[in-house]
Amino acid sequence: MIFSKIDFNDEEPLYLQIENYIRSMIDSNLLVSNGKLPATRELSKLLGVSRNSVITAYENLEEKGILYTVKGRGTFVSEVKSINEDGWKVSWSEKANDYGNLAEKLDIVKSEIPWEKNLISFKSISPDGELFDMEEFKKAFLNRISVEGHKILNYGYAKGYKPLIEHLLKYMNTKGVDTIGKDIIITNGFTEGLEMILTAYTNKGDKIICENPTHNTAIKIMKVHGVEVVGVSMTEEGIDTNELEEKLKSNDIKFGYLIPSYHNPTGIVMKGERRYSVYNLFKKYNVPIIEDGFNEELLYNSTHVSPIAALDNGGSGVVYIGSFSKILFPGIRVGWILADKNVIDILESVKRCKNIHTSFLDQGILYEYLRSGAFEKQIKKVRKVYKEKYEFAIKCINKYINPTFIWGEGGLHIYIRIEGVDSRQLLEECYKEGVIFTPGDIFSVDDSCKECLRLGLSRLSIEEIEQGIKIIGEVIKNLKIINI
Amino acid sequence: MIFSKIDFNDEEPLYLQIENYIRSMIDSNLLVSNGKLPATRELSKLLGVSRNSVITAYENLEEKGILYTVKGRGTFVSEVKSINEDGWKVSWSEKANDYGNLAEKLDIVKSEIPWEKNLISFKSISPDGELFDMEEFKKAFLNRISVEGHKILNYGYAKGYKPLIEHLLKYMNTKGVDTIGKDIIITNGFTEGLEMILTAYTNKGDKIICENPTHNTAIKIMKVHGVEVVGVSMTEEGIDTNELEEKLKSNDIKFGYLIPSYHNPTGIVMKGERRYSVYNLFKKYNVPIIEDGFNEELLYNSTHVSPIAALDNGGSGVVYIGSFSKILFPGIRVGWILADKNVIDILESVKRCKNIHTSFLDQGILYEYLRSGAFEKQIKKVRKVYKEKYEFAIKCINKYINPTFIWGEGGLHIYIRIEGVDSRQLLEECYKEGVIFTPGDIFSVDDSCKECLRLGLSRLSIEEIEQGIKIIGEVIKNLKIINI
Repeated sequence: MIFSKIDFNDEEPLYLQIENYIRSMIDSNLLVSNGKLPATRELSKLLGVSRNSVITAYENLEEKGILYTVKGRGTFVSEVKSINEDGWKVSWSEKANDYGNLAEKLDIVKSEIPWEKNLISFKSISPDGELFDMEEFKKAFLNRISVEGHKILNYGYAKGYKPLIEHLLKYMNTKGVDTIGKDIIITNGFTEGLEMILTAYTNKGDKIICENPTHNTAIKIMKVHGVEVVGVSMTEEGIDTNELEEKLKSNDIKFGYLIPSYHNPTGIVMKGERRYSVYNLFKKYNVPIIEDGFNEELLYNSTHVSPIAALDNGGSGVVYIGSFSKILFPGIRVGWILADKNVIDILESVKRCKNIHTSFLDQGILYEYLRSGAFEKQIKKVRKVYKEKYEFAIKCINKYINPTFIWGEGGLHIYIRIEGVDSRQLLEECYKEGVIFTPGDIFSVDDSCKECLRLGLSRLSIEEIEQGIKIIGEVIKNLKIINI
Repeated sequence: MIFSKIDFNDEEPLYLQIENYIRSMIDSNLLVSNGKLPATRELSKLLGVSRNSVITAYENLEEKGILYTVKGRGTFVSEVKSINEDGWKVSWSEKANDYGNLAEKLDIVKSEIPWEKNLISFKSISPDGELFDMEEFKKAFLNRISVEGHKILNYGYAKGYKPLIEHLLKYMNTKGVDTIGKDIIITNGFTEGLEMILTAYTNKGDKIICENPTHNTAIKIMKVHGVEVVGVSMTEEGIDTNELEEKLKSNDIKFGYLIPSYHNPTGIVMKGERRYSVYNLFKKYNVPIIEDGFNEELLYNSTHVSPIAALDNGGSGVVYIGSFSKILFPGIRVGWILADKNVIDILESVKRCKNIHTSFLDQGILYEYLRSGAFEKQIKKVRKVYKEKYEFAIKCINKYINPTFIWGEGGLHIYIRIEGVDSRQLLEECYKEGVIFTPGDIFSVDDSCKECLRLGLSRLSIEEIEQGIKIIGEVIKNLKIINI
């Protein structure tokens, strides 16, 4: 096809013109290394020249090592290309916009101490993969594939896989959330859920109220969207309601962002009464709540605390973001947003702009896993394991650290404060002893929490937990002596 | 836990206070339908009251139908809730921002005639699922799971699954692209690739040059980002280079966006020489190119045409977006960006803001499928099938429609123009006869292409293609008579 347009001259022999033409195409990368050339018969027909001219051109190029022939397969371009040092250089580092630059600046994966082998890392709050039931997972895959066949591998709907959506609507009902007038869209995890809401509903300079400290990824997503993050202090009972009302009153607030269960990073579970008064404050000032359902599934007690969304009976004031990423397979990236139909309708179109839809295969597997009952078994198992780790860690912290306070009632992490100790300095010293954790400032919206740290427990053994906490305790003692 | 704080008074009997407290919790949704209450022994301990008071309270509530008991399992909350008509109503329809509103307005799924059973639809250009090799797919899943175990289901890296990235780097080498100084990030398909680049590198009011007509989703993504889309006319040879230079010269252009192979919607394959001159024009004006590798894998000829990225030897001027979504499993949403390392570094942080990473399970399966050789088999099979459909459709178009021009050299669709016929009117009339297609205006950046239409062939049988084109031809005849 690309050979169809040689303008032959009358001066040079045809074979040479063909030869030069092929060379120039290779030089300018129009012909690829190991790319197959047309058969001599085919090319001679295309160019309207004798087959001999083509054969001679090919032979000459082969002699020069530019082409090679494989018997019975054809003639190919050799790998002879060298990098062009004078290539077109674009100054990419000057081109990124505020979002791009801020995303990079706030990317803690790039700035914090990375995980290394033999380190005891309290950084992670992702689930312990050893607890995944791989046999049930495989079964879920094979069952769903046998029900749906190739359809589940083709394009699907932006809102998500219908059986999964219906399952999750019912699931939200069991949490006490009324779903009349509401709908669900499936997202690539919590992160995309929050990102989509901000994309569709916030403008630069808008203000969002949240607990301070709060989930660092949420802070980052708000900041890259140019949103001003307004923090309200945390108390042992959850967000400070007096301060909350002051800030709701005096500011033009767009949304509230709250994590009521095993709050990240403090681990505090907002009690029922507090949920009710917080909900009523946002309602009073007509500021919609974005509720992060994080870790809700891990609540141990016989009586569930309902999500704040359940308090919004008959209303549309709460946008709920759910995810099983701290229990089931975060690597498959499936979460959901439950909200007023009007919101889901806009988000459906936003999703089509972002990535069309979340993997239907992953949604199908998750649905099968949920409907088979494997999820309930899994929940019971992980609750038990994480509870043991949590209770053991509390004992170790009391024994080896004796901090100013211990926050957190369970889940995957514990939050502590050690008066007089800079957690950044502590981290530096602990790192030398083979232990790392997440310093509190990462979760702070205003440079506070400098004496706090979050200890993620989910991926550590009982032995590692004890050893790690013991080391932290020893380093603290030495630091305190130095500081005096 | 939520029962820990009853402030008992001295006036009422304890059981009544407990009863009222539980009722108020249910009324305010703090206790969920079918939620389990603490055992009487447990609750009496918590509240510091006699067990009898709790038993009486439970019994009274059970009599009123508010609680129910399941023998051996415990006491639960009944489903008696009714929707609160006076709930908190948020005016969501006024809250969306420009992105949200524009995403909805430009969402053709919401505005165009949807697919229905028994319609012959030339709208789709997604692959024919019947061609997917499900056995190879299952094998790929099981093999990758057995290699990686639970790791592939836990959090992974924002850039993507390393074996897949390495495989794709080599794959790009076979296309003649040098990858020195470059890197790859895995995205949720082409759509997310383009969306991420615009998120990180464009500001409102920036200009992007593209072929006119072009891929409608790309136009939409640019518009929701507030980017001004500058169209350059298509000729039968590809983008008009004179017009391109005029526009590169006179405007402050941020990027070029190009689809060189089986261009969407025209189906035109830009020839090697044209690729070279187009590349050199962008280089001359130092405007980086975003190359959409769409359908490149379907090119039939023995000699590949290299992507434009291959012309950029030693340079960093081309950002290449690749995807197998038109051949393999679009439902799993895996694509990639190949670009200068500096670009991938920023995009890695952007990806962490958007959705952390693309499903590692899906990446793992795709990698296994590619490395096993199943991909090459699949490519050969689909090329043959789509080529047959394409050639047959061309015959039918010439026989039944005889349009002003037929563009497109293969792939999944054909683009035709019928002078004097408004393709919107044609669509309306064809719909009555059970045939739909995509009218040209959808792909236009300036309201042109009104006499054109795109016919997607991939999901239709030979019989449906003939019947559908015949009907379009008949409707055109009638329209022409009416219009005279």
